[in-house]
Amino acid sequence: MTQLVQCIPNFSEGRNIEVINRLKQIAEEARGVTVLDVTSDEDHNRMSIAMLGAPDKIAEVAFSLVKYATKHINMQEHSGAHPRMGATDVVPFVPVKNISMEACIQLSKTFAERVSEELNVPTFLYEHSASSAERKNLSHIRHGQFEKMADKIKKDEWKPDYGEQRIHPTAGVTAVAARMPLVAFNVNLNTPNVEIAKSIAKIIRESNGGFKDCKAIGLKLAERHMTQVSMDIVNYEVIPLYRVLETIRMEARRYGVDVLGAEVHGIAPAQALIDSAAYYMQLEDFNAEKQVLENRV
Amino acid sequence: MTQLVQCIPNFSEGRNIEVINRLKQIAEEARGVTVLDVTSDEDHNRMSIAMLGAPDKIAEVAFSLVKYATKHINMQEHSGAHPRMGATDVVPFVPVKNISMEACIQLSKTFAERVSEELNVPTFLYEHSASSAERKNLSHIRHGQFEKMADKIKKDEWKPDYGEQRIHPTAGVTAVAARMPLVAFNVNLNTPNVEIAKSIAKIIRESNGGFKDCKAIGLKLAERHMTQVSMDIVNYEVIPLYRVLETIRMEARRYGVDVLGAEVHGIAPAQALIDSAAYYMQLEDFNAEKQVLENRV
Repeated sequence: MTQLVQCIPNFSEGRNIEVINRLKQIAEEARGVTVLDVTSDEDHNRMSIAMLGAPDKIAEVAFSLVKYATKHINMQEHSGAHPRMGATDVVPFVPVKNISMEACIQLSKTFAERVSEELNVPTFLYEHSASSAERKNLSHIRHGQFEKMADKIKKDEWKPDYGEQRIHPTAGVTAVAARMPLVAFNVNLNTPNVEIAKSIAKIIRESNGGFKDCKAIGLKLAERHMTQVSMDIVNYEVIPLYRVLETIRMEARRYGVDVLGAEVHGIAPAQALIDSAAYYMQLEDFNAEKQVLENRV
Repeated sequence: MTQLVQCIPNFSEGRNIEVINRLKQIAEEARGVTVLDVTSDEDHNRMSIAMLGAPDKIAEVAFSLVKYATKHINMQEHSGAHPRMGATDVVPFVPVKNISMEACIQLSKTFAERVSEELNVPTFLYEHSASSAERKNLSHIRHGQFEKMADKIKKDEWKPDYGEQRIHPTAGVTAVAARMPLVAFNVNLNTPNVEIAKSIAKIIRESNGGFKDCKAIGLKLAERHMTQVSMDIVNYEVIPLYRVLETIRMEARRYGVDVLGAEVHGIAPAQALIDSAAYYMQLEDFNAEKQVLENRV
């Protein structure tokens, strides 16, 4: 049975079209790997490549990408809206088919070790691969970002999982993980007041007592004269999308604000949507594992 | 690339446990075929077996099942709530993976011919395999049921697609098709008055001017003191489930009746649920083909 892993490396480049295209090309030309999605954003000055393939093939192309990024992205000159700490900021591996989380954790560790040894970029393990509870949440590792990482990494508690206690001068550090598939889920509000979106995001995110494994920020969508609660739902099986959406709708009412629409950004697993369909359609005794054709194929 | 076809033969037996178990066993013991679901119902006096496999393997086990049913189910002694015209009532083939509708049509024709030749059961082709527009809808073929089929089949316009113009004395006739996956979708109403469910079913079904390719009947769920609009949504890509559900909800309001819940019966394709999730979640620009992970694997 073919094993399939998804890997979605994020690089700190969203403006230099030459670098963006070259990274895209490296991924697309790799044998045995399918590129699912490539996104880049000038404001964030960041790009991501979602790829699918066998574990060894995926790790090989991911390494080629990190090698190129290490050489061609200079964090000393980088600015952008999205938090980041390295030329290759994060490299998550996600089990998709016929492979366990345990095997993905091993894959992520081997990969993180190789990056530190061959490219001299110290690496931190997060999420399911984390070496301690404090490192599970990526935002704890990334706190202080590239600019403060040179000092942070010297502290005992922030010794990298692989590599020496000093950052790569231009490529910073990189976080590597095995994790569950996450859903990038945005909810758009019919108000131009970004404070409302920010207030609601605070309620939603775990770090403020909101939903478990849910990350949320409030953003202005200037062109559309509206605002957005932008989220990563790390564990959609525990926190289904409908619950997040309906909570936002409920909280928005306090301001006389409505939900205009929602967006699933990039790739999402079918189950994340099916769970919400079952809620809204009031399905009784629906067992997706048994009843959804694709789950039986 | 492995071709996968779903086949869901329906047999006119829902009471004789020996026959039910033997049919189930034949399907389960077949090599290279997965049994997805087996349902039997005493009121309907009917059973169905949903199976998945390669085209040749699926056709082979389906033939073994029809052969057994032809020998062990006597339509002269059959009664039940569900319309039926043969010991094997229908045998639909559904393309699932790496196979075209065209190839499934060919598969259904070869199968129908074999049943008529080797088992002396005349066969009619319906849905995508139909030889004329009048025969596309199964209910037109089945109209009059087993009891009137001996006369009906003698008429020029009801000459079977394969076999002679006389029914098999105990096994009647069988309908064979290639068709799209359908969704068996039931909506439960908080009224014990079956006339309300029947009125709404009339509005829903195509034969009364309702939704295209939608079959609907109103039923009493005596034990639960409520009623049900029970449907086959033959083409969920054209008529999404949410539209049917919300139409029923809207029509039920006329009677002061609410929707208590809904059921997806048996196997359904993920897309049928994802389309409804996208509606209720107000997803903007969602492209399931590109964005749902399983569609890319």
